[in-house]
Amino acid sequence: MTKSRNEIPRATVTRLAFYLRELQQMHRAEVVNVRSQSIAEKLGLKDSQVRKDLSCLGTVGQRGVGYRVDELIHNIQHVLGTDRAWNVILVGVGNLGRALTGYKGFGEQGFRLVGVFDSDPKKIGQKVGGLLIQDLGSLLSFASEQAVDLAILAVPATAAQSVLAAIEEASISGVLNFAPVAVRPSQAGRTIVQEVDLAIELQRLAFSVVR
Amino acid sequence: MTKSRNEIPRATVTRLAFYLRELQQMHRAEVVNVRSQSIAEKLGLKDSQVRKDLSCLGTVGQRGVGYRVDELIHNIQHVLGTDRAWNVILVGVGNLGRALTGYKGFGEQGFRLVGVFDSDPKKIGQKVGGLLIQDLGSLLSFASEQAVDLAILAVPATAAQSVLAAIEEASISGVLNFAPVAVRPSQAGRTIVQEVDLAIELQRLAFSVVR
Repeated sequence: MTKSRNEIPRATVTRLAFYLRELQQMHRAEVVNVRSQSIAEKLGLKDSQVRKDLSCLGTVGQRGVGYRVDELIHNIQHVLGTDRAWNVILVGVGNLGRALTGYKGFGEQGFRLVGVFDSDPKKIGQKVGGLLIQDLGSLLSFASEQAVDLAILAVPATAAQSVLAAIEEASISGVLNFAPVAVRPSQAGRTIVQEVDLAIELQRLAFSVVR
Repeated sequence: MTKSRNEIPRATVTRLAFYLRELQQMHRAEVVNVRSQSIAEKLGLKDSQVRKDLSCLGTVGQRGVGYRVDELIHNIQHVLGTDRAWNVILVGVGNLGRALTGYKGFGEQGFRLVGVFDSDPKKIGQKVGGLLIQDLGSLLSFASEQAVDLAILAVPATAAQSVLAAIEEASISGVLNFAPVAVRPSQAGRTIVQEVDLAIELQRLAFSVVR
């Protein structure tokens, strides 16, 4: 039974994205069919969990054959919304920002880095990841010309909230916030913010180890 | 009511780590008491959610006063296991690895980067983040001397599984895997692996935006 996007829990979305990554690797290796069990084994999950998650897509496996890899890829991308290209900008070219511009995984999942911004006059005009670093002040005009969908925020904590205001003004729909501070959009629902904190990933790991 | 670590869901652990970050900022600003509502507002959560999560810690707020900030910090760190220092190594000094060595948030949460490893002879002997890049071959002896707790894996996909084997051999308890491929420990339960994929964070954001 296909579920609507609103009914799919966040944890399922995360797992679907991990299934997609495995399925894309299988596809590159010219694997045509896959059993839920082999996805489960690769990711250390229960077979029943994988089958339940895939049932959200309205995709059914065939007994003894499994699922078609290309069909699963297509259906997961459709649910995630990555069956089209997304224009992404990066704001903040520190060490992390620089690393993110070279992160291959983004392009592979349909995210196209179209602009890079910083407020430091020494960085503006330099190149990173094949793109010219632009002045933060030109974000608004750039975003309207280039139809920017998402922004990656990799600025210091002190700058994060004011940069978010500029991003909101540019009507960018979503922000992935790597700044070590929670930022809140001024108008609820206009720009969606997702927080990422790499220290929190280590804390979650520490919790699992202690447990 | 205090819950044992085994009873605390993963999603709660993640939120606790985000509360901790906010509380530490308040502590630096010399805030003594905090209401659950003001944590909730900062993070865009419901007040009832925050109160429920904090009740897992056995910490109760006082009517009209709220919670003591220092007590909450202490209790969350105790639950997460970060009330002690953790020795961490990084394996793989590419762009992302290099950025991770400079990531301030790790030190602030009690994670101490004690060693950096790579297999590229051109990188070995160079310095990054104040540490000498060591040959991957010396990981085993280093880990036993330095009591390494956790490893951050930032190697290419093709190398990830074999590096994990070396990490397991060195009896390192936990691995944060940034390599764009799922890795599985050979012996279940000895080394815990947590996958991080920055493209998946963008996919989750895209999903929220489309919805």
